Amino acid sequence: MPSYKAPVADAMFLLRDVFHWDRYGNLPGFVDAPLDVTEAILGEAGKLAEAELQPVNASGDREGCTRREDGTVTTPKGFKKAYDAYAQGGWIGLAAPGEYGGQGLPYTLAAIVNEFCAAANMALTMYPGLTQGAVAALLRHGNDAQKKTYVPAMLEGRWSGTMNLTEPHCGTDLGLLKTKAAPQGDGSFKISGQKIFISAGEHDLTENIVHLVLARIEGAPAGVKGISLFVVPKFLPGPDGAPGARNAVSCGSIEHKMGIHGNATCVMNYDGATGWLVGEANRGLAAMFVMMNEARLGVAMQGLAQSEVAWQNASAYAKERVQGRSLTGAKAPDKAADPLIVHPDVRRMLLEAASFNAAARALAIYAGLQSDLSVRAADDKERQAADDRLGLLTPVLKGVFTDTGFANAVQAQQVLGGHGYVAEWGLEQFVRDARIAMIYEGANGVQALDLVGRKLPKDGGRAMTALMGELAAFAKEQAAEPRMAEFVGPLKVGLDQLQKATFWLMANGLARPDDAGAASYDYMHLFGLVLLGWMHCRIARACIDAAPPDADRRLKLARFFMARRLPEAAAHLAKLSSGAATLMAFEPAEM
Amino acid sequence: MPSYKAPVADAMFLLRDVFHWDRYGNLPGFVDAPLDVTEAILGEAGKLAEAELQPVNASGDREGCTRREDGTVTTPKGFKKAYDAYAQGGWIGLAAPGEYGGQGLPYTLAAIVNEFCAAANMALTMYPGLTQGAVAALLRHGNDAQKKTYVPAMLEGRWSGTMNLTEPHCGTDLGLLKTKAAPQGDGSFKISGQKIFISAGEHDLTENIVHLVLARIEGAPAGVKGISLFVVPKFLPGPDGAPGARNAVSCGSIEHKMGIHGNATCVMNYDGATGWLVGEANRGLAAMFVMMNEARLGVAMQGLAQSEVAWQNASAYAKERVQGRSLTGAKAPDKAADPLIVHPDVRRMLLEAASFNAAARALAIYAGLQSDLSVRAADDKERQAADDRLGLLTPVLKGVFTDTGFANAVQAQQVLGGHGYVAEWGLEQFVRDARIAMIYEGANGVQALDLVGRKLPKDGGRAMTALMGELAAFAKEQAAEPRMAEFVGPLKVGLDQLQKATFWLMANGLARPDDAGAASYDYMHLFGLVLLGWMHCRIARACIDAAPPDADRRLKLARFFMARRLPEAAAHLAKLSSGAATLMAFEPAEM
Repeated sequence: MPSYKAPVADAMFLLRDVFHWDRYGNLPGFVDAPLDVTEAILGEAGKLAEAELQPVNASGDREGCTRREDGTVTTPKGFKKAYDAYAQGGWIGLAAPGEYGGQGLPYTLAAIVNEFCAAANMALTMYPGLTQGAVAALLRHGNDAQKKTYVPAMLEGRWSGTMNLTEPHCGTDLGLLKTKAAPQGDGSFKISGQKIFISAGEHDLTENIVHLVLARIEGAPAGVKGISLFVVPKFLPGPDGAPGARNAVSCGSIEHKMGIHGNATCVMNYDGATGWLVGEANRGLAAMFVMMNEARLGVAMQGLAQSEVAWQNASAYAKERVQGRSLTGAKAPDKAADPLIVHPDVRRMLLEAASFNAAARALAIYAGLQSDLSVRAADDKERQAADDRLGLLTPVLKGVFTDTGFANAVQAQQVLGGHGYVAEWGLEQFVRDARIAMIYEGANGVQALDLVGRKLPKDGGRAMTALMGELAAFAKEQAAEPRMAEFVGPLKVGLDQLQKATFWLMANGLARPDDAGAASYDYMHLFGLVLLGWMHCRIARACIDAAPPDADRRLKLARFFMARRLPEAAAHLAKLSSGAATLMAFEPAEM
Repeated sequence: MPSYKAPVADAMFLLRDVFHWDRYGNLPGFVDAPLDVTEAILGEAGKLAEAELQPVNASGDREGCTRREDGTVTTPKGFKKAYDAYAQGGWIGLAAPGEYGGQGLPYTLAAIVNEFCAAANMALTMYPGLTQGAVAALLRHGNDAQKKTYVPAMLEGRWSGTMNLTEPHCGTDLGLLKTKAAPQGDGSFKISGQKIFISAGEHDLTENIVHLVLARIEGAPAGVKGISLFVVPKFLPGPDGAPGARNAVSCGSIEHKMGIHGNATCVMNYDGATGWLVGEANRGLAAMFVMMNEARLGVAMQGLAQSEVAWQNASAYAKERVQGRSLTGAKAPDKAADPLIVHPDVRRMLLEAASFNAAARALAIYAGLQSDLSVRAADDKERQAADDRLGLLTPVLKGVFTDTGFANAVQAQQVLGGHGYVAEWGLEQFVRDARIAMIYEGANGVQALDLVGRKLPKDGGRAMTALMGELAAFAKEQAAEPRMAEFVGPLKVGLDQLQKATFWLMANGLARPDDAGAASYDYMHLFGLVLLGWMHCRIARACIDAAPPDADRRLKLARFFMARRLPEAAAHLAKLSSGAATLMAFEPAEM
């Protein structure tokens, strides 16, 4: 049976020694979360993940969700109890404003909690995760009445949220969407259409479900400029705020899919359902994008989470399972064979995951801090700089964390051999669950295009210029510490490659958009490798300065990463600078 | 619904124009398969795959196998009919000797047929595939009576075969196996023990199942030198050759696993079952290895097969599905959006698979020819050279084809976005099915060790020296054809990297085995890239010389490969030459 232990100590090391959490102590939210409080919060989150969510993960996968003839959906046994523990612990509103019942703590902490819970049970954690995304959109774009009607019940977890974007004929290209909204004259709209792939669209965990739905108001322009956002509750809230009449929205079927079986992926039918406009008419896509940025970071955390839990289980197996002898002579001569961990190639598989997990957790916390600073910093310029940085990092984290998280889960599965392929040990579930994160909230190719086409050139490249400057300054500063040379040397090589790639894009991608498109995916991964390398350097520096108890292990992980992952950057640079010609030469019939 | 079209024309191009099939026309077996006959055979195999096997692939995955209380196992609906079509077409004995009812045709053709059938239905094709492996072992190591008793019924498909190696506590390290064989004084043995992960261990497709079982004769030495091979039929053949008394071997349970649901993966209990020694006592592992080399090539074909069928379906989807606009302006202005195929990054995903499929099929045929030459060539030296080459290529093909095949299936799934994650379109099944091929018949890390630890140094490096010589000579020859320069240039770079890696291994791996182990996986993939690059060059040369109708497409695929895949070789070289230190520095507790 698979197990999971939340990496609380690692998160605390990163917050304390790498990112100097106490320096932010005067900012809103941070003031309530000094290091000891933060440690207690993360400890509780770890317990929730380990004791409530993880025990129903494998059983939830086996059982899946069931849609009954009346359109209701039953979640797997034990999900309701685990969900209630999550909700009653106040975790949904951890970073939400106190005004609506949230705890107002830094988003950074919510991101860490999100990793723990998604590692323990990704399918289950998606239910409150979607609620958090819907709350973010309502808080930013809803009117006061909407906020008061929906947000408190959602933060308590009595009501849950969903995002309704995709339709049978459109996912990435939302300009094509057909769902209609007809004004009723009383301020409400009748919503009609079909949405597909709606996670948590229908279930038995909450007393109401609040759907945020993209639809086109009658007479609105075609394309993305005619899309509006609506709130469409499953039960219409009565004057007392309690769920009242059943709305004309229902689950038509649930998908049979590769993984996340415990989360109901629904076809949702809107048959003249009553909804209310959220924000301005025809500005729905922008409103939804608010939700999507946060959701993308949440999905990035799922990639890290599955990598972490898969690695934990493969690592435990590799130390227990004896099979074959070390190439350099028996290491456990008293046993019939040596444990798998003696084999260099088994170590390679485990360390690829472990070295990613360590640096990705750092990078996630770094991005979380940018998110917090972008709204909580006292200074306008600081807020702007953090917002720039966050915008640049978001597609990289989503794309790289989910691609690498999946690849690491596959490697971890490989460590177990045949035992990785059968359900009993849980690894194959991690692989199947991790796979979706590369697709939803914008497929990773779309993230790469967002990075190259939007985030890089935005404001004359301001965000990238600032980041490159900071990285160069960091590398320079470290010259004063000779023990950093072995880490900073490879980082500088990677940084140089990233700069070359960026110049290549500027020189070619602007004039020939296909060159930018053809380069985008390799550029995103090159970018990710350099950011992860930077994080390993920052961790190494913290190990040197603060000498935490497991400094040795962390320095070894950084060395491994520099020797055995960062060299991939060169291949990405070579590929992307070969241009679009070898891709675009094909006629469609030839492909 | 997924579909499949067997690439008969591509195989014929490779046989005719790249490998000059007619040059082998005087060898046994080849004499019966001139090009026109071969084309007819492959055409029929394609029909079998498309019309009989593929239609029950998705349904077989959904339904899976069922074990009943009496220990019998039911295969999915339609499997029996499809299996019968396979058997009755004579496909099991395609390359087996005529003496026992086989057709005696080249193994190369069987390998191609194997690709078609595994692409159409991997789970089903495994049943006759295991029979072929068991037949190979019986023909090589069985006595005359055993051959006569078992082989004809197996080639007809009335009886099927299995390989029983793995036990709960050992897979890779067979020296640990515990299954016992007690002599009965009448030449037979009583076999007792438990085997796990036995593909096709029990099912309802054939009237008898012939298990080849590794066990230890009472008093035999510990370790691999005390293992013997036994034939243990489900029903003991009577004097008339018909299945008689039920033997004491039974299926205790079937595994719940990630994919290949249509193939029963069984726990097999041997409770004093009657078995007969195959070959010499205590030489069972060597006998089983005969079976495993052929089986490894078969598994390599599964990797290619899943890559091909996944690519076919993703390619069709990318041309049909309209979503978004080309970065360079609308390409289908009459439609609401452009087909996905206009997007460079979608092309990248498809072309990574397509360029692999083209070269991997060539390499598979090349390996098949070496297999044929190793037994059918007239000249001793030629047979030896082919055997050397085949031994060197086998682990590379198994490891690289299955890793890359899986990665390509994942990419193909990505092309479909959310539709790739749900069962309806079939892509997620290809991914789940493809995953096992990286594990069974020796996990890919074990293939890499076999390559580096056994195949490279064997006979003073004779096989590698010969291959490197041939590659260098090929590159030199092509200098006379200026149209080859764009392909041979990159190949020479890759070849140089492979040579550097080989020298690095010689200089370091012999003295420090952990360096060899740490380098093995990257070395295997570097080797694979160079071999695939060589095949693209040979294809390109055939396009220039023979000008087949789709020469243009093939040249474009070669260009894509050189620009966008071969650069990975440099990263492999950099990683492997960093040595074992960054892996071995960790204490087990730190991993």
